[in-house]
Amino acid sequence: MDERVREHAELLVDWSARVEAGDDVVVSVAEDAHELGVAVAEALGEREATVTTLYGSDEVSRAYLKGAEAAGGADDAPPAFDDDPAVDRALFEAADVYLRIGGGRNTTAAADVSSETRQAYAKAQKGVREARMNTDWVSTVHPTRSPAQQAGMAYEEYQDFVYDAVLRDWEALADEMAQLKTILDDGDEVRIVTERDDAPDTDVTMSIAGRTAVNSAASVAYDSHNLPSGEVFTAPYDTTGEAFFDVPMTIDATRVRDVHLVFEDGEVVDFAADTGADALASVLDTDAGARRLGELGIGMNREIDRFTDSILFDEKMGDTIHMAVGRAYDACLPEGEAGNDSAVHVDMISDVSERSRMEVDGDVVQRNGTFRWEAGFEE
Amino acid sequence: MDERVREHAELLVDWSARVEAGDDVVVSVAEDAHELGVAVAEALGEREATVTTLYGSDEVSRAYLKGAEAAGGADDAPPAFDDDPAVDRALFEAADVYLRIGGGRNTTAAADVSSETRQAYAKAQKGVREARMNTDWVSTVHPTRSPAQQAGMAYEEYQDFVYDAVLRDWEALADEMAQLKTILDDGDEVRIVTERDDAPDTDVTMSIAGRTAVNSAASVAYDSHNLPSGEVFTAPYDTTGEAFFDVPMTIDATRVRDVHLVFEDGEVVDFAADTGADALASVLDTDAGARRLGELGIGMNREIDRFTDSILFDEKMGDTIHMAVGRAYDACLPEGEAGNDSAVHVDMISDVSERSRMEVDGDVVQRNGTFRWEAGFEE
Repeated sequence: MDERVREHAELLVDWSARVEAGDDVVVSVAEDAHELGVAVAEALGEREATVTTLYGSDEVSRAYLKGAEAAGGADDAPPAFDDDPAVDRALFEAADVYLRIGGGRNTTAAADVSSETRQAYAKAQKGVREARMNTDWVSTVHPTRSPAQQAGMAYEEYQDFVYDAVLRDWEALADEMAQLKTILDDGDEVRIVTERDDAPDTDVTMSIAGRTAVNSAASVAYDSHNLPSGEVFTAPYDTTGEAFFDVPMTIDATRVRDVHLVFEDGEVVDFAADTGADALASVLDTDAGARRLGELGIGMNREIDRFTDSILFDEKMGDTIHMAVGRAYDACLPEGEAGNDSAVHVDMISDVSERSRMEVDGDVVQRNGTFRWEAGFEE
Repeated sequence: MDERVREHAELLVDWSARVEAGDDVVVSVAEDAHELGVAVAEALGEREATVTTLYGSDEVSRAYLKGAEAAGGADDAPPAFDDDPAVDRALFEAADVYLRIGGGRNTTAAADVSSETRQAYAKAQKGVREARMNTDWVSTVHPTRSPAQQAGMAYEEYQDFVYDAVLRDWEALADEMAQLKTILDDGDEVRIVTERDDAPDTDVTMSIAGRTAVNSAASVAYDSHNLPSGEVFTAPYDTTGEAFFDVPMTIDATRVRDVHLVFEDGEVVDFAADTGADALASVLDTDAGARRLGELGIGMNREIDRFTDSILFDEKMGDTIHMAVGRAYDACLPEGEAGNDSAVHVDMISDVSERSRMEVDGDVVQRNGTFRWEAGFEE
């Protein structure tokens, strides 16, 4: 076994999930992510936790949804899924920790499931999702060939990319990111401006007053649930203006490019996409919360040095910002206050390395990707 | 996909587990058993059940146990496993149906886990096992290369073997087996005699008064939990005499051959094995119930025409009988009566095709593998 697999597992269990003796841990292992699943199980045994291993197979999920489609709903409606699936709920309610190991053999394994079916299933799974998010959950990925292909990379090249992004000194990065968190916590309003020649400019303003930014250092101790991470994010509201997202992405197995959103009074009132507009429309139509932002994030993991068409990595890349329509994370909200609620959370990313600036209450915090505390920053 | 995989899945879901709309189903998928997992998920979607998929990986289990060994117990004791693992218990308590799909990539994947660790883990899992057995559970196997190798067979040859055994007219076989069930239900005492030249004779007598035989026709509707099945079994007690088991088997990844057991007053008082005696001793020492019989079974699936060193198939083969030390199945017991209790259930098999007879209350029911209702039976 590549020694980096073991390091990844130990980082996931100790730094990210903070597993302790007696914890009940659910691990989901994607197709072909077997090796990391094995290393994680060994680490959990050593730490005297219990482990329950799920098979996170996209082909199994697709088969289930296709079967449900064949059974059909009433009057050509989408399938009627059980909105309180007893086993899934019970297992996540009983779990202290949930570790999701992605990977897989085909990033488009579920491409032929209709968006209506996906949405019906996502809605029915809401209670399960909430139970899962009440655990100390962490999502990571084992570098398999399928995301390597999605990234347009050779297999070994992709392994190096993943481990460079994952096997970091997270405490050092947390210290750096704390500077941006302080600025956002103290600020009331964020404005992001990016000028472009061949696409719409971005000029969008949102309120962050009363919201808490997360210093996402790849650990539940930082309210951070991705490994790798390396971003600072908050939960904005009252968004107005226009935003253009030039980083390609994949929504429900559909390629989506060059998304343009127009906000008024916190809601998306107009949208366009060069490709994949239907998939985008389907997301925005999921529920009322799907048209409002749930997240503004600023990527700060400079070991992620290229886009790989995987949100887990892309949104953490240095010189990028991202906004997500849909669900806000509780960690950004004052105790007891409900943030934007939705069955979806879909991130969209912009390159801000050129002709860009982010202002907080009128002060420029980042220009052309460089933060104010970094060398070369221009006020 | 081989059409037989789909047939297998539908037989498992409909005939064996009797899945109905709204059932909450847990499916465990072994390594390399992916295809059958996919076909089962599709069938469950069609039947409007919910599905939760576990990864039944022997390598993941082995890694967890090795990790626990490394953490160690107090004073060189085996690891102290949590005897109430909350997630496993919650998920099986919430489940209506549990479908275990075996297969795997290495039948000796956990060969280097000590028997002390295995036993400690089996004891700690007792509550989970009980919750699992309170579901409508069915165990089957996807024909992968590793059990083919264990059987000494080519891959395609093994696939044919498995599907011949599985894809049967189970109702017709149930009708035939009902004849033996009636005899055992009405009987008080079973005697089994086999003469051998190069090994000890078998001459063993056991009481079955008050016990109910299971017509194991591969369906929970028959209190039968294996696919394939094709045996009639009951829960004997007060066993006396000697029994020799000439069919090779594997206990905890150890090959065990030529087991000889001596019973007095229902208990094993002496034992021997040509190979694997330590593994056998370890089983018998698990707990008090491990030295008493939990099962007498008579194989009646004549599509299983060779031994493959897999208990799921071997014990159902025509012309064989088997006895298991350890846990008795509730279905054989009068309502409310506790049968033999143990953390283990280990089957041992004898070829009865020659110089053998089974008597019930003194009447010969089977001689040299031929039942009294079959052509060629000699009284």
